[in-house]
Order: sequence, then C-alpha cells, then structure tokens
Amino acid sequence: MKKFIYDESMQFRIMTEKQVKEVHENALYVLENLGMIFAYEEALRLLEKAGCEVDYESQKVKFPRSIVEKCIESAPATFDLYDREGNFYCTFGDGKTRFNPGSSAGNILEADGQTVRLSRVKDLKLLTKVAQSLPHIDFVSSSIVCEEAPGELGSQYLYYTEMQNSVKPIIGGATDAEGVPRTFKLFEAVLGSEENVRTKPYAIFDICVTSPLKWSHIGARNIIDCANMNIPIELISAQIAGATGPVTLAGCILQHTVELLGGLVLAQVVKPGHPVVYGGAPCIFNMKTMYTPMEAMECSMVTAGYAQMGRFYGLPVHTYAAMSDSKIVDYQAGSETARSGLLAMLEGVSNVSGAGGLNVIAEMSIEKMVIDNDFIGTLKHLENGINFDETSLAAQLLIETGSGGNFMNKKHTLKNYKKEQNYSNITMNYQERASWIKEGRADIMDKARAYVAEIDKKTICPLSDERRKALDEAFTEVCKDAGLTEETAKELIRMYDEA
Amino acid sequence: MKKFIYDESMQFRIMTEKQVKEVHENALYVLENLGMIFAYEEALRLLEKAGCEVDYESQKVKFPRSIVEKCIESAPATFDLYDREGNFYCTFGDGKTRFNPGSSAGNILEADGQTVRLSRVKDLKLLTKVAQSLPHIDFVSSSIVCEEAPGELGSQYLYYTEMQNSVKPIIGGATDAEGVPRTFKLFEAVLGSEENVRTKPYAIFDICVTSPLKWSHIGARNIIDCANMNIPIELISAQIAGATGPVTLAGCILQHTVELLGGLVLAQVVKPGHPVVYGGAPCIFNMKTMYTPMEAMECSMVTAGYAQMGRFYGLPVHTYAAMSDSKIVDYQAGSETARSGLLAMLEGVSNVSGAGGLNVIAEMSIEKMVIDNDFIGTLKHLENGINFDETSLAAQLLIETGSGGNFMNKKHTLKNYKKEQNYSNITMNYQERASWIKEGRADIMDKARAYVAEIDKKTICPLSDERRKALDEAFTEVCKDAGLTEETAKELIRMYDEA
Repeated sequence: MKKFIYDESMQFRIMTEKQVKEVHENALYVLENLGMIFAYEEALRLLEKAGCEVDYESQKVKFPRSIVEKCIESAPATFDLYDREGNFYCTFGDGKTRFNPGSSAGNILEADGQTVRLSRVKDLKLLTKVAQSLPHIDFVSSSIVCEEAPGELGSQYLYYTEMQNSVKPIIGGATDAEGVPRTFKLFEAVLGSEENVRTKPYAIFDICVTSPLKWSHIGARNIIDCANMNIPIELISAQIAGATGPVTLAGCILQHTVELLGGLVLAQVVKPGHPVVYGGAPCIFNMKTMYTPMEAMECSMVTAGYAQMGRFYGLPVHTYAAMSDSKIVDYQAGSETARSGLLAMLEGVSNVSGAGGLNVIAEMSIEKMVIDNDFIGTLKHLENGINFDETSLAAQLLIETGSGGNFMNKKHTLKNYKKEQNYSNITMNYQERASWIKEGRADIMDKARAYVAEIDKKTICPLSDERRKALDEAFTEVCKDAGLTEETAKELIRMYDEA
Repeated sequence: MKKFIYDESMQFRIMTEKQVKEVHENALYVLENLGMIFAYEEALRLLEKAGCEVDYESQKVKFPRSIVEKCIESAPATFDLYDREGNFYCTFGDGKTRFNPGSSAGNILEADGQTVRLSRVKDLKLLTKVAQSLPHIDFVSSSIVCEEAPGELGSQYLYYTEMQNSVKPIIGGATDAEGVPRTFKLFEAVLGSEENVRTKPYAIFDICVTSPLKWSHIGARNIIDCANMNIPIELISAQIAGATGPVTLAGCILQHTVELLGGLVLAQVVKPGHPVVYGGAPCIFNMKTMYTPMEAMECSMVTAGYAQMGRFYGLPVHTYAAMSDSKIVDYQAGSETARSGLLAMLEGVSNVSGAGGLNVIAEMSIEKMVIDNDFIGTLKHLENGINFDETSLAAQLLIETGSGGNFMNKKHTLKNYKKEQNYSNITMNYQERASWIKEGRADIMDKARAYVAEIDKKTICPLSDERRKALDEAFTEVCKDAGLTEETAKELIRMYDEA
C-alpha cells in the first residue's frame, strides 16, 4: 500500500482529501509542539535515541516531523497470520474485513437473555468453542475475563482457555506490564518453539493509549515487548468525546491521530517494519444520561475519520463495531450492530472487534454472537460484490423468457442460485408467518440458544495430550512468575477442566 | 444533474463505470429487440406515434434506441414537493435521503408486538398521526389498507384518511385504472383548486410494472393519467430474483433497467419533462423456504445496482428499505432495517419506503415506525457529515488540555455538544444498566408504545371545517363514481370519524 495517498477505494469516506491532509498537518504540529507522555523510562530512552525531544522529569516526548514520517513509512500495510496449528490463516490488511468477538467484558448475559453476572472460565470456554464453530467469526479473542483468575495473572488464564478451544488466531493483549513475555511462554508451549511464535504470528495484541495523550507504563512496555517478540500490535485509542477527548468529531479524529502516531513511532523505533494496526474504540459522552455509548452514530463517524487516516498512512485499520449499547438482544442491538458493522466494512476496516458485545462491551452474549455471525455473513456476501459477466447479466435469457415469463423453472436459476444467494443462516427468519407459527414461533434467541447448546455438548479442536501437558507446565510457570503458588495454578487448571 | 455520467459521488457503488455502461447497452438491446407488453390501447397508440414499433395484437412494443435516449434526457433530476397547506416542502432529488412508512400492508402488528390482524381505518389514522409527529419520517404514505373500504374504492379511503391527519406530502398510488383521476378530485377538494394540485405537487404516485416486462392496463393508464395531471410518478419494479426475474443479481439489474426505461418512455411521450422517480422493490426467491424476502442482502445489492443506473440517467431514485422480513420487532428487525436503510442512503436513494414494515411488508407496526424514526435520525446525523473547521479540529484546545487533561469542563464542550451529537431519541437505551433496571427495565417496545399512546390522545393538524366539508363531498362523489351508494360513502365517513 502506498503511503500518504488519499484512499479513493474506500466506499465510505467522511473527509475530503484536503481534510485528511489538514488532520495530518495538525497532528504533526501537535506532536512536534506538545508531544505526549510516555510513563516508562525505557521508552523515553529509545525515543530520545531516535531523535525525539525528551523531558525525563515530566516524561514528555516531542516528535520531530521527520521521525514521525519515517516511522509511518517503515510500518507495513499487511502481515500474515497463522493458526494454532501453524497453518497460514490470512493476510491481515488484504482488503477484507474480518470479525472477532467483543473484548475483555467482565460480565456475561446468560442464555435467558435477561440475567447478567460476572463471567467465568466456563463462559469463555463455551464462547471460544462457539466462535471457533461459526463461519463468519474470523478470530477468537480475550472476549471475556474469568472471575476465577487472580488479578496478578493478568490475561494469562484467558489465553490458556482460548488456545484449548479454537485454532483461529487470537486478538488479545496484556493488562499488565509483564503480560507480553508471559503470554509468549504460553504460545511457545502450544506452538512448539520460540521460533514458531516469532515467525508464524498467531495473535495480535491490543495496546491502549490513556487519552488524552498518554502512553502508560504498561502500554509503553507492551509496545516495546511486542516489537521485540514479533507480536503484531493493534494500537487503540478509546477516547470519550467530551470527556477524554474533544466533543467535536473532527477534534477526536485529530487527537486519535496524534495518540496513535506517538505509539507507532515507539514501535517502529524498537523495530522498523514491525506490524502495527491502526485501531480505535471511540466513545462519546452523552450529556443527558452521563452514559458513554460506543455504538452511537458519532462513534462510527469518528471511526470513519481515523480509518481514513490509517489508510492514508498505508496501515491496516481496526475498530470496535458490530456490537451494541443495548442491555438485551433486541431491535437496538440489531440496528447498532448492523449500522456500525456495515459502516466499518465500507470504511475499509480490516479487523472489527465486537460481535456478541452489549452495553459498552461490559457484557457479552454468546447467543448474540451467534446471531451477529448471521448478520456478518450477509456483509461478507456484500463484500464479494455482484458476479458480472455474460451469464449473470443474462440478456439472452431475458429475451427468451419475455413478458409474463417465469424464471423459476429455468436451468439458469438452478445452476446459479447457490452462488448468487447467501444461504448461511442459523437464526434469522426467512419463512412465511403461517409456517413460523406452525413451527412454534421460535424467536431469534431461541434458535441461537439451541445452536449454543449443541456446541456445548461437543469437544472442539482439543490440544493433543503432549501439547496440553506443555501448556499446563508453561501456565504453572507463568503463575509462579506472577507470584502465585503452584497450588493456585493447579486449582485454576482443575477449574478449567471442570468448567 | 448530468445524464449518462457515472456517478462518483455515491458513497456505495456496486458496479464499475464499465459495468454501468454495459447494463445500459444491454438494456437498449433488449428494448429494441424484445421490447415489452403494454396492456392498454392508448399507451400503444401513444408509443407508436412517438416512433416505437407496436404490435397491437400481442400488445408488444419495441423501442428504438434514439427514443429511449431522448426520454432519458427529458426527464428531470429534481422536482419540488409541497405540503397539504400549499407550502414548499422540499426539492425531491436534492441529494438528501427521505423516508416514508411502509406501503399498502394489509395487516397491522398490534401494540403487543405479537398479534397480527387485518388493518382498519383506525390503524391508518393513528399511523398517519404518528408519522406526522415524527421528525425523521419525511412523507406519509398509503402505508396500510383499510379492511372497511370496499374493493371498488381502490385507494381513495386511504387518501381520505391520510389527508386529515398529516400535512406531509403523500407517497401514494392507484390500485385501479380509475384511481388517478379520482384521487385528483380528493386533492382538489383539500388543496382548494385544480391549479393548486397541478402546480404544487403534493403526492408522488407509485406505479408498478408486472415483472417480467409487462405494463398492465392499470399501470399503463396510471402513467398516462399522472403525466397528464402533473402528479410525479415513481416507477417500481418488484421483480423476484429466481421467479419473476433472473436469479443472478446482474440479471435483475438488467431486467429492472429494461422495465423502468419502458415506463419512463411512456411518461415522457405523454409529457416530456414529467417527473419520474427511478424506483424499485426487489425481492429474492429463497429456494430453501419458498419465501420471498424484500430485505435480504441480495435485495440491497440489486438496489445498489439500479440506483447506479437511475443516477446514470440523472433521475432521483427510490427503494424499499429500512424495514424487515422478521415477524416481530426483534434483533432481525433492527439489523435488516439498519443495513438496508444505511445502504439506501449510501446508494444515493432519494426516497426510502418501508419504515414500520415487517414480513415482506405484509404487516406494519406503528411502534416499529417510532423506533425506526430514531434509527433514521442517526442516519441523518451521518448524512450531515462532520463539522470541519478550526474550532471543530481544536488543535489549540488539544495543546492547552494536554496529556491527562479533561475536556468535560471546557467551554468548547458545552458550546458544541448539541451540534456534534444527535440527541433526537424516543426509544433507544443510552443509560447505565443500573439506572435502566431502577427505572423498571422499559424495553424498546414499551417506550414506543408509550409514545404512540400519547399521540393517540391528540388531534394532529385537522382540516378546517370548510376543507373537511369539501373533502367529504368529493369523497362521496368518488364513491358514487366507483359504483357505491351515497349511504356507503356516509357509512365510511362515519367509520372514519368513530375510528
């Protein structure tokens, strides 16, 4: 992908070429004159060495234009991802939009669609199995946390669980400073060697800036560790318009640009060419209700803006979408999921986190993820476009059929309907009202529940005994490294097995 | 608007410039070599006089290329609409997307969200009042039929009801051959004079082709009458891919083009320059369930194609969207409404029929229309784009606020939040789960029901006694003209008043 080019190929563009360039110029101005905080000494040293202006006391870093531009140039447009079995999975940033469930929700909406409670390892296990089974959920993720896991363990119990229930690449991250090297050990155990982890990237790590304009100790260290360990990075700004970011959408896009370029420079300074995804999770502050929706239209508009910036920089883009701020799986859930998911695709976003998510992604519904999968299937049908050739245009067929004719009995229909129409569907209702009533009025949640119950009975892509043993050993080591006892590690493994 | 130009300004384009031109060339080829049926002698005579090749026995008309091109040239890109009070309402085709509820549903989904029954005049009265009250429903329409009205009366009882409960322009149509002149009489009574009806268009008439490739007696006569009486026309092909149209989406786009150009030629032959909207209601035939969804993704893809053709011809475009094939107001209803509504807007559609519609628009839900209005409000917020100037970009504010700062207490926030954020909302949930539970867990349908109940208590924009009297007289005349007795007319008026 070329750099510093206005991307005409995106279907939805909210800014003109002039505006994109104006955001870029303003971002460079802010980076050069204000800069931002990096609360981690090694980051300050690395940035100073690269030519940035560093004040160690205030931890502020100012970025000369030339360094920012050089780092934009060195970051790649695409990179390959591999699955748990070491097979090539996809080229990330290839122009396709891929989807993964939620991220880091603390609660689960139970199958009844009403009860919300803290999420546990049994929920993550089931969610991951279901995500593995769904054709349009492309990656798994650290979608929910496990109540059982001690805080010291960060996200390690999540990886431990995810890797045993899916072969799909993981969208993850670290919630503590030691997180990246610890997860690396778990990956190494499952993938077989350090070299495999380094040469066949199996995960992308989300790393969040603290808006406005601060990379925390954890964030800065995660960036450095990921770059050193060859784990692709997804930089994320989750600014809240009107609180941790300007209330104006253009201002949010500017701040987002400044924040991400700061993180990008650090990653490229550590290792030029390291894959960085241009990500975000924009929220707004609703002045009437003091709520911070992630799926208000304004959030999609900010995403549209920063997606244009990311593509201007020749980087793959990420966002949170295809989820909802509703509290239940209702019309609002459907409309927000559809609106934001479709817009993300038309905005040229490579990776969309959110399926299954509700209420500012504080809650996950496994059933909603199943329904979202059906919706995402329709997006992928759209993404494939229309078949356009002599056969599909069918002028001759039209002439043969003529006024008042019927296409139902034509060979052309039988031959083409599976290619032309999307029949990937688990939960949506495409039947007459009468037959629907006759079959018992199953609603969309009923169908999703039935699907989840079926998957729950199955064992899906378990690790071999040997790999499982290696993972358990690595997990125990990681627990000990985090200050936990071997007994706690064993207890966590037991709870996993019983979940 | 220029003619025969590939429209780069549309946000979503499913065909390339080359493909658009190929559809055009193929359509001209089919029009010239196969043509289509017009089952109305006057239409045949008019088309023959204009230079088409007419076979009176088979009623087939073949169209020389030059005539088709001339008629495309003469049809206008925009036209003005007026409200019931004679005030300018909008320029149709000005680049904005406008929305109106459903059309011609025979059933109503009651407020309980479960019970479906035949629709009655009380439903149309309430629906029209609610549509009048909603800020994002731009037009009213013959959204539901009235069980009480005798078949002979066509749509006249609908107009009688709509005009008394809304001042917004009407998207209507005629279901019988005499429909247009009869409705004209009702309009004349309410608008005050024949001249007002002719010079201040207050309605657009939907006229449907019988796919494949046939303009019925009713359709052809409606076109001629509308053109003569200066009522803007919305030509609609409702072909079903795989049944009354080719199963291939490209084939559907081609057939749609042929069908609409045929109708367009007739309208322009009657009166060059008469406003014609390039409309459609594409369905697909689901081979698994024998169902014909209107809101499957494939339908939006066909719309994307014919919208490009309509814009290529410099015409305003119409479609059915922002509705759902679900049987209840659930996630599917929300996601299909959002996906199709958003796509229609990005496809540059001027007029979207469908809000409130369910189950292949066989059913209307007034509550869903209220919820759809909220969703449409978010689309209009998107349509307005982002404010982009020095104030909104706020680089200086960013520098003043700096790392770790807070925007909540900034004047900039207070001054701009109402402009930047969409606060038009009746039913969507933008609050914390805790406060939602505390307030009684009102779901989206509860809120819509409460809104409808409030409107139900009100009288909204009634006609003056004088205008009402004129309308009653005209309605009675129309009833008699349709072969009904004066007593039946009085009974219908009484039922209206009691509804």
